[in-house]
Amino acid sequence: MKTINFDHIGANPLLPEVKEAMIGAINRDYHNPSSQHRAGEGAAEALDQARTAVAKLINAAMPKEIVFTSGGTESINHAIKGVALANAEKGRHIVTSNIEHNAVIRSLRRLKSAGFKITSLPVDETGRVNPADLARAITDETILVSIMHSNNETGTIQPLAEIGQITRKKKVVLHTDAVDSVGVVPIDVTALGVDLLSFASNTFYGPTGVGGLYIRRGTRVFPLLDGGVQENNKRAGSENLIGIIGMGKAAELAERDLAKRLAHVKTLKEKFLTELPNFIDEFIINTHAQHSLPNLVSISVKYIEGESVLLMLDDDGFAVSTRSACATGSLRASHVLLSLGLSHADAQGTLVISFGVDNSAEDVTALLTSLKHVVTTLRQISPLYKTRVGAK
Amino acid sequence: MKTINFDHIGANPLLPEVKEAMIGAINRDYHNPSSQHRAGEGAAEALDQARTAVAKLINAAMPKEIVFTSGGTESINHAIKGVALANAEKGRHIVTSNIEHNAVIRSLRRLKSAGFKITSLPVDETGRVNPADLARAITDETILVSIMHSNNETGTIQPLAEIGQITRKKKVVLHTDAVDSVGVVPIDVTALGVDLLSFASNTFYGPTGVGGLYIRRGTRVFPLLDGGVQENNKRAGSENLIGIIGMGKAAELAERDLAKRLAHVKTLKEKFLTELPNFIDEFIINTHAQHSLPNLVSISVKYIEGESVLLMLDDDGFAVSTRSACATGSLRASHVLLSLGLSHADAQGTLVISFGVDNSAEDVTALLTSLKHVVTTLRQISPLYKTRVGAK
Repeated sequence: MKTINFDHIGANPLLPEVKEAMIGAINRDYHNPSSQHRAGEGAAEALDQARTAVAKLINAAMPKEIVFTSGGTESINHAIKGVALANAEKGRHIVTSNIEHNAVIRSLRRLKSAGFKITSLPVDETGRVNPADLARAITDETILVSIMHSNNETGTIQPLAEIGQITRKKKVVLHTDAVDSVGVVPIDVTALGVDLLSFASNTFYGPTGVGGLYIRRGTRVFPLLDGGVQENNKRAGSENLIGIIGMGKAAELAERDLAKRLAHVKTLKEKFLTELPNFIDEFIINTHAQHSLPNLVSISVKYIEGESVLLMLDDDGFAVSTRSACATGSLRASHVLLSLGLSHADAQGTLVISFGVDNSAEDVTALLTSLKHVVTTLRQISPLYKTRVGAK
Repeated sequence: MKTINFDHIGANPLLPEVKEAMIGAINRDYHNPSSQHRAGEGAAEALDQARTAVAKLINAAMPKEIVFTSGGTESINHAIKGVALANAEKGRHIVTSNIEHNAVIRSLRRLKSAGFKITSLPVDETGRVNPADLARAITDETILVSIMHSNNETGTIQPLAEIGQITRKKKVVLHTDAVDSVGVVPIDVTALGVDLLSFASNTFYGPTGVGGLYIRRGTRVFPLLDGGVQENNKRAGSENLIGIIGMGKAAELAERDLAKRLAHVKTLKEKFLTELPNFIDEFIINTHAQHSLPNLVSISVKYIEGESVLLMLDDDGFAVSTRSACATGSLRASHVLLSLGLSHADAQGTLVISFGVDNSAEDVTALLTSLKHVVTTLRQISPLYKTRVGAK
């Protein structure tokens, strides 16, 4: 049985053109882009081309502002630890939010052990940071603000342009984890006013384990990987050329097709949300109605466990997730959902449905039909459902 | 004109079976190995298989001791910074050698700014650390020894088993940068007595930008990349699955063919060294006669510049290097060669010739013939050559 993928936040398929570019790179056997002889020139050119395509996708002022990394997590670690260590003599205070990805949370926890002070802002019940809270949290000691662009569990988008106005006015470096946004919604680093922005190739149908960090020219940040002079001395190590070529091609296609893709997934998301009440009742939508990714819905289905729904949907041929794949194995309820004010019980009933270019309207109907069956079955054996207020 | 690659230390071609495995992975469109549904199972299995193959290549006690990284540089940064930060309360002293790769040197420099004390050991004129020096350098404050297995510019192999006996006796963690050794010479982490070992896939004809860190079970080391729970909680971030599958296949082949490959490159190296005096005179061999990689020769050709030789050999269709590709752009003489006692002038005349499975004996003869022509031409215009002692 072929699985229909509604877990695009976990993995997007590679686009045919991306596959072709990567296979071409494999067969070409590039030499080292840093080598001094001509055999390395082709590799250096391929690297430049990918850098230009990625810079264009996020409207960076110049390709040199893009540093290739091994993915979103490395980019985030690089940005946060790199800014902290490079600016520690100016201050040791960092502002973030309560709903960040573990890569942000744990990088900051590492800095906390090293003596940095972290202020973590709450979000309102729609999952958004209040820019006024941020303005108040910034002190003379603040060297970095790190607020995600969109949340990987709810899809909710933060008021980043407003946040950028505040950090620019206060002359504090702003980093954003845009791993789930770049290639899904238009991202313009200039308009957003961010100094650093983390992204990952797989979000826009490129390979996993490849990503980048936008570093605005002039931003003081130490490398995370020390060593050779690659990436303009900002990130040492021989490049994952095949992966980077794949990301470059994916960036080119994302820029060309963004509007079309956005419209496609938005239609699917709207169909899902509109029709959902016809299939199940008693659920909570955790995704912001206006300010959210067009490709992601988080719902908490009352009285049952998301894990059980996931496994039964899997049996029916649908891949969904309950939360970030990075958090698999954790039994604790999602910190993101608890921050929205959800109860532990409701948080446990959460499903993340994420749409992609490979999904059709028929796929959505099929998912809803299966979901109705699964929810009904699970509620029949749910003690919580039997004893709920209003149960007959 | 097709270039004959004698810069395998810069880049090895991918083996046909590795290409096939990577192309297969691209076409298969794996889901996320950390996802909870069945679509991710194939990815998790592929990851396990690669881990097992790599563990076998270096004789790790269990696959879990292998952490996949974005290459040798990340592995080295992870080992050095990770051990230092995890053990800082026990002591803040680290011992290394004067001839390490920049990834080691610059990681240690970063730690030095953070208050760690570094002792860097000299090497003798053959390029080797004296184990007795190491024993004397270790104090009660020493938490880490990092000595490379083989040098990337000279190929000289360190007495690592003896070093391992010392660190085990003194209960100090031992890391080795084996980036240019794993897959070229037999490496057995148990026999060497190392606690951490860094390696890179391209050394054994796998893709660049992929590597690993061996972490002996029980070794206290913090992650370099904080975030999700991937890699047994030792290295966060979605995996570069296509690259890792390539590395796994390359490891499998390296284990199978190591003896054959070793014999092949050794024959080429011996041919080169034996016949070299028939083609040029007045040169220094920087590579240890016994204790060195079978695939690398470093020679310093007197009175001329290695860069000029490289460019003229490039015109003749041969790719060689003058030093590590990671150091390209640096005009300073190599710290490795100066550590051997070479003069600046001799260090500038250095060429690194590295052999691979794709080279033949005829290739070596062709290189020697071209080298003779290049050296003769350059010496004719060299003021140093005209004024040398003994010039007619």
